[in-house]
Amino acid sequence: MQVNIMNEDTICAIATAHGMGAIAVIRISGSHAFPIVAQLFQQNGKAFDMDKMLSHKAYFGQIVDGDEMLDEVLVTFFKGPHSFTGEDSAEISVHGSIFIQQRLLQALIAKGCRMAEPGEFTRRAFVNRKFDLAQAEAIADLIASQNAAAHRVAMNQMKGGFSNELKTLRDKLLEITALMELELDFSEEDVEFADRSQLNFLLDQAIAHITRLTESFRLGNAIKNGIPVAIVGETNTGKSTLLNALLGEERAIVSDIAGTTRDTIEETLNIDGTLFRFIDTAGLRETDETIEKIGIERSYKKLSEADIVVGMLDATKEYGDMCEAARNILEKTDLTQQVLFLLMNKIDQKVTEQISTETLRQAQGAFNGQCDRLRYDLQIEIGRTEIMPISAKQGIGLEELRSKLSTCKSDFDANGTLVTNLRHYEALRNALESLKAVRQSLADNIPTDLVAQDLRIALHHLGTITGEVTTDEVLGTIFSRFCIGK
Amino acid sequence: MQVNIMNEDTICAIATAHGMGAIAVIRISGSHAFPIVAQLFQQNGKAFDMDKMLSHKAYFGQIVDGDEMLDEVLVTFFKGPHSFTGEDSAEISVHGSIFIQQRLLQALIAKGCRMAEPGEFTRRAFVNRKFDLAQAEAIADLIASQNAAAHRVAMNQMKGGFSNELKTLRDKLLEITALMELELDFSEEDVEFADRSQLNFLLDQAIAHITRLTESFRLGNAIKNGIPVAIVGETNTGKSTLLNALLGEERAIVSDIAGTTRDTIEETLNIDGTLFRFIDTAGLRETDETIEKIGIERSYKKLSEADIVVGMLDATKEYGDMCEAARNILEKTDLTQQVLFLLMNKIDQKVTEQISTETLRQAQGAFNGQCDRLRYDLQIEIGRTEIMPISAKQGIGLEELRSKLSTCKSDFDANGTLVTNLRHYEALRNALESLKAVRQSLADNIPTDLVAQDLRIALHHLGTITGEVTTDEVLGTIFSRFCIGK
Repeated sequence: MQVNIMNEDTICAIATAHGMGAIAVIRISGSHAFPIVAQLFQQNGKAFDMDKMLSHKAYFGQIVDGDEMLDEVLVTFFKGPHSFTGEDSAEISVHGSIFIQQRLLQALIAKGCRMAEPGEFTRRAFVNRKFDLAQAEAIADLIASQNAAAHRVAMNQMKGGFSNELKTLRDKLLEITALMELELDFSEEDVEFADRSQLNFLLDQAIAHITRLTESFRLGNAIKNGIPVAIVGETNTGKSTLLNALLGEERAIVSDIAGTTRDTIEETLNIDGTLFRFIDTAGLRETDETIEKIGIERSYKKLSEADIVVGMLDATKEYGDMCEAARNILEKTDLTQQVLFLLMNKIDQKVTEQISTETLRQAQGAFNGQCDRLRYDLQIEIGRTEIMPISAKQGIGLEELRSKLSTCKSDFDANGTLVTNLRHYEALRNALESLKAVRQSLADNIPTDLVAQDLRIALHHLGTITGEVTTDEVLGTIFSRFCIGK
Repeated sequence: MQVNIMNEDTICAIATAHGMGAIAVIRISGSHAFPIVAQLFQQNGKAFDMDKMLSHKAYFGQIVDGDEMLDEVLVTFFKGPHSFTGEDSAEISVHGSIFIQQRLLQALIAKGCRMAEPGEFTRRAFVNRKFDLAQAEAIADLIASQNAAAHRVAMNQMKGGFSNELKTLRDKLLEITALMELELDFSEEDVEFADRSQLNFLLDQAIAHITRLTESFRLGNAIKNGIPVAIVGETNTGKSTLLNALLGEERAIVSDIAGTTRDTIEETLNIDGTLFRFIDTAGLRETDETIEKIGIERSYKKLSEADIVVGMLDATKEYGDMCEAARNILEKTDLTQQVLFLLMNKIDQKVTEQISTETLRQAQGAFNGQCDRLRYDLQIEIGRTEIMPISAKQGIGLEELRSKLSTCKSDFDANGTLVTNLRHYEALRNALESLKAVRQSLADNIPTDLVAQDLRIALHHLGTITGEVTTDEVLGTIFSRFCIGK
C-alpha cells in the first residue's frame, strides 16, 4: 500500500511552538535531507560520518556553518520510508533561542533546503500513503484540541477509526456494484428479481450507516467547537448577568469566538473537560419594531440550533407572567433533541430581609415549591428539562447549574465514530443523496446500468474523504490550514 | 572529573516553547525516568520492552494512560551518564497540542514525577560536572541571545573558553601559592629574596590578566544588553525625533527596556546583527531650576557611561552657538574610550526652496563645508569623531548614520574572552582587590603566611565563577533565572 516518493525538493521548518524555549526542533525532509545536514553537522571538529549513521539514533554534535559554531545539538536521522513523511528526514534539537532557530533555518536554506509550506510534511506523508486524508486532517484537529472530548474524537480519527468505517461502507457499496454487474451480465437470463432483495437490503444498510454518520456531525461539531448552549428569555431576565457569572468563575480559559458569519459574540467555557459554547441572545418580547423583530427571530434560530437551551425566567414577576414566558420557551424547544434548563432568576430580589448567603439559600429552598408548581402547570415530565431557582447576580445556584451542565454532556458522549469535519459531512451528505437516488431508481425499475452511475458517484464522494479521489486544489485547501512545521 | 549522582526525585517539564506547535518535547530526568515512562509507553498495544531499549534511539509508539490513548509519540531514552543531566533521561516528542502536553505532564506526575523547577535539568548537569557554573550560565545566555554578537559570546563561554581562561589564572595563583609555601618552608634559611622577583612577576601577570577580564565587562555587557549610545544635545535639537526616526525604520525588532534602576526608557535596535541601546537624554542648557539641573546631570552621566555619544546640533542656529554647543559635548566626551557622532540636524529647515529629496541631498552636500569648518575650529582629528549633516525629520543622512554605527561596532568586536555576567565581574573585581593587597603586602614585607590568606581569598573568588566554591543559595539564584524545562 505504502509508496515511497522522495521529493528532490527538500524542506525545512521549525516544528516546535514559536518563541523562546529550553529547546526547539527543526525538521528537514526530502531526498537531500541527509547530505544537507551532513554539511552542517560536526562531532568534535570533524564532519559527521554519514556512512556510519544509524536511522532513529540521536547524535550529539555541533552545527558549524563556515567557521562559526552555531550550537551544540542532538540530530536524529530517519531513513525513508521509516519516517513521518516516508522520505529521508532529520530532526535537529537546538537550544531554544529564536536567533539560533532562525540562523539554522538560514544555514539549511543556504545549503539547498527551502522553507516548508503549512502542512507540507503531513502532505508528503499522505502522498506516501502513511495515512489517508481523514487521518491527516485528524492530526490538525489533534494539535488544536483543547479538551478531552475533542482530543478523543481526533485521536480516534487519527488512529483510523473513521477511515475503517468508511472502508466498511465502501466495501458494502462495492458489493452492491458487484451484484448490479452480475445482473447486467445475466440481464438476458432474467436473474434480476432473485438479487434485488439482497441489493435493497445492502443498500438500506449503507443508507442507514451514512445517515448515522451524518447525524453524528451535530455532536462531532459540538465537541470540536463546543456544545452550543443558547441563553434565551425575555428582556431583562438576567441573561448577560448569567453569562458573565459563569465565565467569571473560569475567566482564564474563556476565549472570544468572534462570529465571522454570525452576528453574535459567543463565549466558550470548559466545564470539567467539556467545551461549552454559550450564546447570549436578544431578549424575547412582543414588538412591532423591525430591527428588534429581526433580533428576536435570530434568538429563536439560535435556540433551535442549540443542543442545550437555558431559558431565563424572572422570579420577581407575577407567577402567571413567568409561567407564560416559560411556556413560550418550552414550545420553541425540541425536547427530543435538546435539553432545557428553565432558570427562575433574581430570587435574591424576593428576599426582603437583609441579604446573606444563609437567607439566599433559604430563599432557594422556598423557590423549589414554585419550581414544582411550574413543572405541574406546564406538564413538564422529569427527564430532559430542569427547573432551578437561581440568583445570577449573587451566584446562588450556579454551582448546581454547572454541575448539571457537565453531567448532561454525557448525553453527548456517544460511542462510535463522530464526524467533526464539515468537508466530511458534506461528502457524506452527497453520498447519501446518491444512494437514495439509487434506491429510488431501483424501485422505479430504471435500467441497472443507469443506476450504477449514481452508485459510482456515491463511491466517489466517500473516496474524497479518505483522499483516494482528490485534487491538488482540495489538498491545497486542507493543508493550508495546518501550521508550518507539521 | 564527572560524577554520577542520580536523583531519586524524577523531574519532568515541557522543554519546548509554550503554546501550540507541530510537536512539543517533554523531558524527564532522574533515577525513575525509565520505569515511569515505561508505564505509559506502548508499541502496538503492548508495553514497551525496556530490556531491549537502546540509549539514544528514537522509538515510535503510543502514550497510553489507563485505557486512554493520549498520543502517538517518539520516545528517546538517554542512559545516564550519557545524557544532558548525567541521569537516566527521556524525551517524549508529542503532537504539539496544549491539551496533550498538559495531560502527559499530569500522567507523568501521577506515575511519580514532579514538575521541574526552573533550570533544574541544567542544575543537575552541573552537579554531575557535565560543565561548570560559568558554562551553565552561558546556556541561559545562549537561549536568550538575540543577535550574532551575543550568541558568539555565549557560545564561547558555553564551550568553556572563559572557564579555560579562569583555569589558567587559577594555575598561576596556585604557582604563586606554591612559591610562598616554599618560602615558608625555608623561612629559616633566608631564601626569601631569591624567590620574590619570580613571585612578583607571576603576581603582576595575574593582576594584568584579571584587569583585562574586568575591563572586558564593559564590552561584554554592551554586547549582551546592547552597545549604549547616548543621544545628547541642547533642548530642541531633535534628539527624540532622531530616536523615533531610527526606530521607525525597524520598528518590528524594537523592544522597550524599562529601566528598573534607571529613570529613562531605553530603546534597543538591531543594526546588521548588532544590538544598540539608544538612550534619549534631557536637553542640555544653562538653568537654575533644580529639577531640570538634576535631569541635565543625569544626561552627562549617561553620556559618560555610553560607548557611543551622538551629539545633536541645531543647524538652524548661528554658527557660533552651534560651535559652542559642539565644544561642550566634545569636552564631556572621552575620545580614548568613546566614539562621538556630531550630527548637524535640521538641515531641511535651511533650505528655502520647495523641499524635495533632491534639494535636501544638495543641502546635505552644502553642509559638508560647514562640517569641515566645525572640525577645524574644534581641532577635531579624523578618527573617533564623525561630523555629519542630517535631517532627522526628513530622514536625510540616517542611512549613512546607521551604516557608520554598524561599522563602528567592529571596534567592539574584540577578540578574546569577554565577561558578560555581573556575577563574574564582581567576583573578578574581588579577586583583583585581593591580589593587589597581596602585592602591597609583599612590598611592605608583611610575613608570607599572612599574605597567603589574601591569595586564598582571590582563589576563592575565582572558584565561585566556575562553581568550584558555591552555596545552595548562589545556585538557587542562578538557576531560578532559567526557564522551566532547561
